[in-house]
Amino acid sequence: MKNITFLIALCMVFGCNPKKPSTEPSLQLSNQEKVDATNIKQFFDAALTDGKSYEWLRDLTSNVGGRLSGSPEAQKAVEWGEALMKEVGLDSVWLQPVMVPHWVRGSKEVANYSINGQQKDVPICALGFSVATPKDGVTAEVIEVKSLEEAEELGTKMEGKIVFFNRPFDNTLINTFKAYGGCVDQRVQGAAVCGKYGAKAVIVRSMTNGLDDYPHTGTMSYGDLPKEKYIPTAAISSRAASILSADLKNNPSLKFYFKQQCETLPDAPSFNVVGEIRGSETPENIMVVGGHLDSWDLGDGAHDDGTGIVQSLEVAYLVKKNNIKLKNTLRVVFFMNEENGTRGAKKYAEMSKMNNENHIGGIESDAGGHTPRGFSIDANETNTALVQSWKKLLAPYGLHDLDKGGSGADISPLKGEGVTLVGYRPDSQRYFDYHHTSTDTFDKVNKRELELGSASMTSLIYLMDKYLYSNTPVKL
Amino acid sequence: MKNITFLIALCMVFGCNPKKPSTEPSLQLSNQEKVDATNIKQFFDAALTDGKSYEWLRDLTSNVGGRLSGSPEAQKAVEWGEALMKEVGLDSVWLQPVMVPHWVRGSKEVANYSINGQQKDVPICALGFSVATPKDGVTAEVIEVKSLEEAEELGTKMEGKIVFFNRPFDNTLINTFKAYGGCVDQRVQGAAVCGKYGAKAVIVRSMTNGLDDYPHTGTMSYGDLPKEKYIPTAAISSRAASILSADLKNNPSLKFYFKQQCETLPDAPSFNVVGEIRGSETPENIMVVGGHLDSWDLGDGAHDDGTGIVQSLEVAYLVKKNNIKLKNTLRVVFFMNEENGTRGAKKYAEMSKMNNENHIGGIESDAGGHTPRGFSIDANETNTALVQSWKKLLAPYGLHDLDKGGSGADISPLKGEGVTLVGYRPDSQRYFDYHHTSTDTFDKVNKRELELGSASMTSLIYLMDKYLYSNTPVKL
Repeated sequence: MKNITFLIALCMVFGCNPKKPSTEPSLQLSNQEKVDATNIKQFFDAALTDGKSYEWLRDLTSNVGGRLSGSPEAQKAVEWGEALMKEVGLDSVWLQPVMVPHWVRGSKEVANYSINGQQKDVPICALGFSVATPKDGVTAEVIEVKSLEEAEELGTKMEGKIVFFNRPFDNTLINTFKAYGGCVDQRVQGAAVCGKYGAKAVIVRSMTNGLDDYPHTGTMSYGDLPKEKYIPTAAISSRAASILSADLKNNPSLKFYFKQQCETLPDAPSFNVVGEIRGSETPENIMVVGGHLDSWDLGDGAHDDGTGIVQSLEVAYLVKKNNIKLKNTLRVVFFMNEENGTRGAKKYAEMSKMNNENHIGGIESDAGGHTPRGFSIDANETNTALVQSWKKLLAPYGLHDLDKGGSGADISPLKGEGVTLVGYRPDSQRYFDYHHTSTDTFDKVNKRELELGSASMTSLIYLMDKYLYSNTPVKL
Repeated sequence: MKNITFLIALCMVFGCNPKKPSTEPSLQLSNQEKVDATNIKQFFDAALTDGKSYEWLRDLTSNVGGRLSGSPEAQKAVEWGEALMKEVGLDSVWLQPVMVPHWVRGSKEVANYSINGQQKDVPICALGFSVATPKDGVTAEVIEVKSLEEAEELGTKMEGKIVFFNRPFDNTLINTFKAYGGCVDQRVQGAAVCGKYGAKAVIVRSMTNGLDDYPHTGTMSYGDLPKEKYIPTAAISSRAASILSADLKNNPSLKFYFKQQCETLPDAPSFNVVGEIRGSETPENIMVVGGHLDSWDLGDGAHDDGTGIVQSLEVAYLVKKNNIKLKNTLRVVFFMNEENGTRGAKKYAEMSKMNNENHIGGIESDAGGHTPRGFSIDANETNTALVQSWKKLLAPYGLHDLDKGGSGADISPLKGEGVTLVGYRPDSQRYFDYHHTSTDTFDKVNKRELELGSASMTSLIYLMDKYLYSNTPVKL
């Protein structure tokens, strides 16, 4: 018996027995929980062997691509979504009209500066809602700051200058969304603060954990600033930001040049895409599951938020495929305009109120399509504890994180007494590598990770349907 | 206040406050545990802001590349490892000689068959230890089977035929290593079974979850078979396997051709690379941390097991950087020849026994460099429970899985009464996309995921050093 020991060693290590494949760890469950565990396993089995989300996402990203609100691609995405919901066989599918902001990037941005006689080109992109530079661009000295407070302190010293926000992510935060949350004020509010004091323009370090060569776009706001004080603002790649910062130490009077031709056009007509499976017992109670259909224009919007869209529809697909009769109505919503306006979210909540609808809960998937980690729960104490009590049913699938927290920008307007809103939370480590850049493309999505997410969300919808508000429907 | 609502919405969703960045969730801890939590946080902070593993891995994969036992690249990897351990400043570094198998692939394999007048080329690669085909290749009819049992039942009906093992992964298993464990007997033992009954050759579906175009190599064994019955065996890509299976249904008598020129040369001299930080109180007690330095030849051995190597050394780096004085000796081992022989593991255990060394525990990282999920514990009940009691210290870093199970092929020979062996368990979803193929390259590794693994392992070493056997050292 020579090399056969390899197989034995392998089996020792991984506990494998080819004749009797290992099963997942068993749990101590009540009879009722065993029924739930069986149903949940069916969702995962179906997603992993017959999931459709990956091919749907391939189709969306390759045949529609980036789909910024108001663009022809966004309209194509609406048509794509409506057709797909019908194909899945939802009981009803409709478009919900909404007017959306219509910002366009214009021709590719350019930036550079010279130091020691050498020109350095800088990867740059305009931020959403920014105004253009003058036709020939802006050129000015640069003041580097690390915060809005530091900029405020500078006051009118920034007149005629380009202010450069360069506070990097705090990489010690395990959840990268927290690092994003700790930095994004620079991108969103930088131009509003600096326009007030007469700065010529604002550039900001891209919102990412690492050093890369891609500018990461995103929305910004001029806040209360009068229109004549609007100044152009753009993101530069994180590596370029680090290099510029070093160069400024050697040559504080270097002149930075950039040009962008973006423009905010009049609001454009668009739609949320909505479909539902009508509840069998209390159809007036609605559970919503959704993500956003729009994306930034630089990449294909694969992780942000193509994955959320296809996972949300796959929830309905898995419910139907497994012949689960939900008591409450399951509504799938592809929200329009999350990235720059959340007009779709506002419209959906407004129409829900107008129609006196009763949302009992919802799940939003807008944190990428990586491997499942859990859910973030925005609910009252009772319902939070109820969701957390399902942990032993969810943990075998890697869903350990069931903390209180936000749900998502699209469903949070539905918040109300007794409403249980949940954000799907996949692993966040890779998310800001791709977020809002040209690299947010289909090849960054892993099929199994995506499908595990769909099944995770379906499992939670199943449990919410069965246990949440089963006796106490609450009006929004 | 126009678009400023975006920022507010964002903060609602992610709980961000730019002035007061959110901290990680707090836990109810004893004073002693608070000390431990502080030290553990230091490991993570240091890994995520000053980690070296990613650049080490870039160096190994780009300047050494694939490093099959006995190859010049494996020798280069030994020199690389020794130099790097010295650079990190371990107290002592040495090479442990070991003779390893020396199998070489030879020129690129070729396979094809014709159906309906159309030739289909098949991505194929020889399995480690396989013999070559005759110089002009083999051509024969194909019998498809799904298991070793099915092949045994065929018996001499397979004479002169190519037997095609085509049982795919069970994709419903959440842990993909279990799916691997449930299939790999086909690859390891297929040729031994079929050689016995006079088959001409064996081909096997690649060991992967998905459908891809890459053949996945790996080791095989002829077991007790007499040499004259050795038959050539190779893996074909999973997609090719599915297509061949369909084609065989239409044309059961199609003839499959393949050619490979691999060869097993005489055993070659090589080394384990070993380094240690001597314990400050009980240096005779050894905690080992390691991975394997050899890899398959098709890719760069990034995830298998470059990540394990650099993470293991980063444990020592983080211990030193954070000025942690370990009571017991920390030994870092880059094991040679895990992939086809585990001779390094056997040699290390043999030398340990000969030198009457006392290993109290160890961690092996050989399951890829993806995001941390936990550890698999191979220890007695008491020590298993002790490791599991550290869960609240580890869970904030995504380390929830602390189940009993195997450790790894390289450290498991150290198993003994009272020895606590642990396998590092990162997320497994993507692992078999790259495993043993040409796509196992540096670009598939994420910097933060890799560094989180190093810090996870360092944290466990810290806890093992402090609490395991502190009063009861046990001889191996």
